[in-house]
Amino acid sequence: MPKFMDVHTGMTGIDQDGLVKAHKADTDIENEEGVHFLNAWADPKSGKVFCLSEGPNIEAVQRVHERAGHKADEIYEVALEV
Amino acid sequence: MPKFMDVHTGMTGIDQDGLVKAHKADTDIENEEGVHFLNAWADPKSGKVFCLSEGPNIEAVQRVHERAGHKADEIYEVALEV
Repeated sequence: MPKFMDVHTGMTGIDQDGLVKAHKADTDIENEEGVHFLNAWADPKSGKVFCLSEGPNIEAVQRVHERAGHKADEIYEVALEV
Repeated sequence: MPKFMDVHTGMTGIDQDGLVKAHKADTDIENEEGVHFLNAWADPKSGKVFCLSEGPNIEAVQRVHERAGHKADEIYEVALEV
């Protein structure tokens, strides 16, 4: 299944609890869109959050994020991996 | 050790062989800067490449990338992870 990296901005000051809760909001509904969120990494200083997922397409990944209340600013299909 | 996510742009058309070679150029010299590159994901369509690493600081990560010939456009310390 294709993998995706999405980028959120403006999450300055996010803490571990906030990241866990945001990730859980995604994983709670991801099955309904055929998506699986693998990892998320956050930089509280810049407010950047990166999410790695797998799913059918970019639109499905975005639907999960939108329904969870945190639309991604950018989503890329990362066809290559090392 | 702190983890970092860096972002490269303009790598449109990169293929698996190119990603492997670029990653190897980093890992060949990473020890000299106390850095370890964990994963890299690439989107050949947009030209975005994301690299996950661990190391002492952003400057050390950038030194590896610069010496390998592909300076990162953005580097973030991702203090939080899920």
